[in-house]
Amino acid sequence: MADTITSMDEDFSEWYIDLVLKAELADYSPVKGCMVIRPRGYALWEHMREALDAEFKRTGHKNAYFPLLIPEHFIAKEKEHVEGFSPELAVVTHAGAEKLEQPLVLRPTSETIIWSMYKKWIHSYRDLPILINQWANVIRWEKRTRLFLRTTEFLWQEGHTAHQTRTEAIEETLCMLGIYRDFAEKVLALPVLSGKKTEEEKFAGAVDTYAVETLLQDGKSLQAGTSHFLGQNFAKAFDVQFQNEHLELEYVWASSWGVSTRLIGAVIMTHSDNKGLVLPPRIAPEEAVIIPIYKQDSKGVVLRRVIELKSQLQKHFRIELDDSDTQKPGWKFAEWELRGTPVRIELGPRDVEQNCVTLVCRDNGEKLQVTYNELESRLSSLLAEIQNRLYNKALAFQKEHSHHPSTYKECTELLNGKIPGYIFAPWDGTRETEKAIKEETKATIRIVLDTETAHTQCLYSGNPAKHMAVFAKAY
Amino acid sequence: MADTITSMDEDFSEWYIDLVLKAELADYSPVKGCMVIRPRGYALWEHMREALDAEFKRTGHKNAYFPLLIPEHFIAKEKEHVEGFSPELAVVTHAGAEKLEQPLVLRPTSETIIWSMYKKWIHSYRDLPILINQWANVIRWEKRTRLFLRTTEFLWQEGHTAHQTRTEAIEETLCMLGIYRDFAEKVLALPVLSGKKTEEEKFAGAVDTYAVETLLQDGKSLQAGTSHFLGQNFAKAFDVQFQNEHLELEYVWASSWGVSTRLIGAVIMTHSDNKGLVLPPRIAPEEAVIIPIYKQDSKGVVLRRVIELKSQLQKHFRIELDDSDTQKPGWKFAEWELRGTPVRIELGPRDVEQNCVTLVCRDNGEKLQVTYNELESRLSSLLAEIQNRLYNKALAFQKEHSHHPSTYKECTELLNGKIPGYIFAPWDGTRETEKAIKEETKATIRIVLDTETAHTQCLYSGNPAKHMAVFAKAY
Repeated sequence: MADTITSMDEDFSEWYIDLVLKAELADYSPVKGCMVIRPRGYALWEHMREALDAEFKRTGHKNAYFPLLIPEHFIAKEKEHVEGFSPELAVVTHAGAEKLEQPLVLRPTSETIIWSMYKKWIHSYRDLPILINQWANVIRWEKRTRLFLRTTEFLWQEGHTAHQTRTEAIEETLCMLGIYRDFAEKVLALPVLSGKKTEEEKFAGAVDTYAVETLLQDGKSLQAGTSHFLGQNFAKAFDVQFQNEHLELEYVWASSWGVSTRLIGAVIMTHSDNKGLVLPPRIAPEEAVIIPIYKQDSKGVVLRRVIELKSQLQKHFRIELDDSDTQKPGWKFAEWELRGTPVRIELGPRDVEQNCVTLVCRDNGEKLQVTYNELESRLSSLLAEIQNRLYNKALAFQKEHSHHPSTYKECTELLNGKIPGYIFAPWDGTRETEKAIKEETKATIRIVLDTETAHTQCLYSGNPAKHMAVFAKAY
Repeated sequence: MADTITSMDEDFSEWYIDLVLKAELADYSPVKGCMVIRPRGYALWEHMREALDAEFKRTGHKNAYFPLLIPEHFIAKEKEHVEGFSPELAVVTHAGAEKLEQPLVLRPTSETIIWSMYKKWIHSYRDLPILINQWANVIRWEKRTRLFLRTTEFLWQEGHTAHQTRTEAIEETLCMLGIYRDFAEKVLALPVLSGKKTEEEKFAGAVDTYAVETLLQDGKSLQAGTSHFLGQNFAKAFDVQFQNEHLELEYVWASSWGVSTRLIGAVIMTHSDNKGLVLPPRIAPEEAVIIPIYKQDSKGVVLRRVIELKSQLQKHFRIELDDSDTQKPGWKFAEWELRGTPVRIELGPRDVEQNCVTLVCRDNGEKLQVTYNELESRLSSLLAEIQNRLYNKALAFQKEHSHHPSTYKECTELLNGKIPGYIFAPWDGTRETEKAIKEETKATIRIVLDTETAHTQCLYSGNPAKHMAVFAKAY
C-alpha cells in the first residue's frame, strides 16, 4: 500500500490526496465538492472537538443549536455579509412537494439566524452577556474544492457572543483567538502566527477579523481559525438593543469565532511524510498499535501475551491490536505507518521470554526496548515526547521559512521559490499595494502584526509603512 | 414565572409548550417548523449523546460523517423508501448563483448516500462487518410540528451496519434495540415497551422495524427509538456485493437504527408536573443548585460559605450557584423548580452556624438537613434515589394504564378515556383490521409482541389471532 503514495517532492498536492484516501480519512461523495469523513478521519475531529469544547465550557460558553435553514432575505440584512456570502449560497426552493413561498438558504455561517433570535432574547443588560457556541455543518458552494481544506459542506464550531460594551466584545474576540492559538500549538502541534486580517481579507460583516495561520510543508499558509469582532453590525441589522443600567437603549456588541474540519488538512500537511500520516498523539485515533511477530510454533504464546498487553494498556491508552492472520508483520508495519499511529509496539517470542517489548516511534523511527514493568510509564512519556517533537520540528520549519527581505525583488524571489514561506515586510496599509502584490506574486497578507513600523518604508511602494504585514501564498 | 404555566389537566399540549418555552429549552425559529435548541435544552441532548456514544463505542461502532446533500435520484433506488420519504423532502435547486443540473435533497435519513459509499468500500468478506454511526441533522418537511416531538429539522444519530449474513444483521438490529431500551430505562428513567412494528408502521425500506415505545402522562405513546433489519434491500438497490470465503458473490445484509432529539420531548412529558420540568439527574443540566438565604446582616458570611460549597461540590457534581442579588429566595425556588433541577441546596445563616445545609428534592418536595461532612455522599445517594424514583413512578403509571380488555367495546371505551394508555389485544394480523381500528379509535399498533396467541381470537374480527398487539394513541 504505502509504496503507491506519490512522493511529497514530486507532487505535494497528489501526495496529500493519496494520504487522505489511502489512510481512509475521507472519500469523495457522489455530490461534487462534498466529502465523506470516514471513521479514521472523524476520530481526529472527535478528539479536536473534545479538547476545544472543554476549553469553551471552561471559559463560560454553552452549546446550543440553531436551524440549518435561513430565510434568504436574512442574509441581505447586513450589507457586507450579503456581498461576501451570496455567491456561495445553496438554496432550497421546494419542500414537501411544493414550491416554497420564500426560498431558504443553507447556513454558510449563522450570524443572521442567531441575531434574529437574540432580538427575542435580549432586552436588558441583565440578559448579557450571551456566550453561545454551536457544533454544526455548514454549506458554502465552492468552485474548487479539496478534501478537508475546502469542501462544499464542512463541520465546524461557531461561537456567537453578545455583550454590553465594545471593550468586552473585543476582549472576548481576543480571548478566543488565544484559545485557538493554544489549541493549535498544544493539541495539534501546529505553531501558528496570530494577528489581524486586512480589510480585504476580513470576514464579511466584521469590524475586525483575527486569525491563526499555520505554515504547511509546501511553504503555503493555511488560515486555521478566525475570531471576529463584529462591532454593532449585526445588532443594527437585526435591531437588537438592550436597556442599560441607566435605562437607555443601546445596540448590543458582538463577536463570532470558528474552526472547522479543515484543521485536519493542516495537521496532515504539516506533520506527515512519504510513508504516510504522522499524527500528534493527542488526536491520533490510536496512540499505539500492538503488532505480534511469530512463527507457527510461537503463535500461541505470543498471541496470548499481546491480548494481555492490550487489555492492560487500554485502561490508560487508546490501543489497537493488529492480530489479523492474513498479513505478515512487515506489511502491517507499513500499513500502520501509513495510518500515522504514533507508537508501534512489537512483540515476538524472544520478547515474551524476556518480559519486554520493542517500541518504535512513527515520527523518527527511533526504537527502544522496554520491560513489561516500565511499559506504561515509558509509553506515556514517549507519547508526550512525540507530541513535543512534532511541534518543535514544525516550529523549526516555520522559522527556517520566515523571511525578512529588504527589497521587493528579494520578496518576489522568495515567493517564487519552491517553499515560499512567510515574508515579513513593512506595508503602507493601502489596498492598492496589497492588490498589486497579490497580482504579481499570488501572495496575500495573512496577518498584520502590532510591530512598531515608525521610520520604515513599504517594501512595495516606498511610502511610509503603517504596519508590519506577513505575506504568504495560501490555501 | 411558574404561576403562568398552563395546568397539565387543563390542556396537556399547552402545558408542554409552556414548559419548553419558559424553561428555555427551545424556541420557535423564523422558519416554520424549525426549532432553536437553547443551551438548557442542548445540555440534555449532550448528556444523552455522551451516554449513547459510549455504548455505541463499547459495542464496536465508530462514528463517521456523510454528506447532507443527496442526489435526488438516489432516494428513488429503493421502492418503498421513495414512497415513504418523497412527500417530506426539501430540495436544493440552485447553488453558487446557478441552477443545478441535478436537484439535491437534504437527507431525511442516510441509507441511500451511505450505501452508495459502501458500494465503493465493500468487496470482500474481509471488509465486513462495517459498524458505523453518525450524529447529524436531518430534514423532513412536516405539516404539523411540535417542539422536540416533530420538527422539520432535528438532531439524531443514525447507525448503518453491513454484514455477511442475515443472522448477524438481525443480531445487530436486536442488540441496538436492547441498547436503546437500557438507555431509556437507566439514563432517561423511561420504562419502555419493545417489539416489532407492523408492515403498516415499519420504516420505508426495512424488512422489519423494532421500536421502543414509552407512555406519556396524557396516556399517548411515543416511539422513542427504532432499529431496522434492512435485509438486502439497500444492498440490492445500490448493487453492493461481497465475495465470500468460497469466492462467491453475495449481497450484503444491513441494519440501521436511530434516536433523536424527540427523546427530550418524551422526558419532559413523562416526568414533569405543574410546577415545571422534572429532570432525571443523569441528564439534567445541573444536578443541584445552591441557593443562599440571607438578610443584609448575614449576607457576607452566607455568600462566603456558598462559594466554598460550590467549589467543593463541583469537583464531583454539576452544580450551579444562584447568588444573584436581584431576586428573593422564594422566586429562585420557583425558577429552579421550573427548570427541573433535581436537588436544591438551601443555606442560610443558621445553617452556617450549624455546619449544615438543607436539601430539597424537586420530584417529591422531600426536605432533609445534612451536615457538611456527609453532604457529598448524601447528595450522591439522593441523586441515585431520585433517578430510581422517577423510573418507578413512570413504570407504575405505565402499568396502571396498561389494559387487557376482553371485548372490542371495552377497548374503544378505554381509548376514548382521558388517559387512553396501552391496550394489549389479540390481533388477526391483517391490515384491514389494523386500519379499521385506526379509523374508529385513532389508535395504532405500536408494537407486536412475541406472546403466544394460540386459541385466542382477534378482539376486532373474531378470527383466530396471530399476534398479541399493543394499541395506543401516539405522537
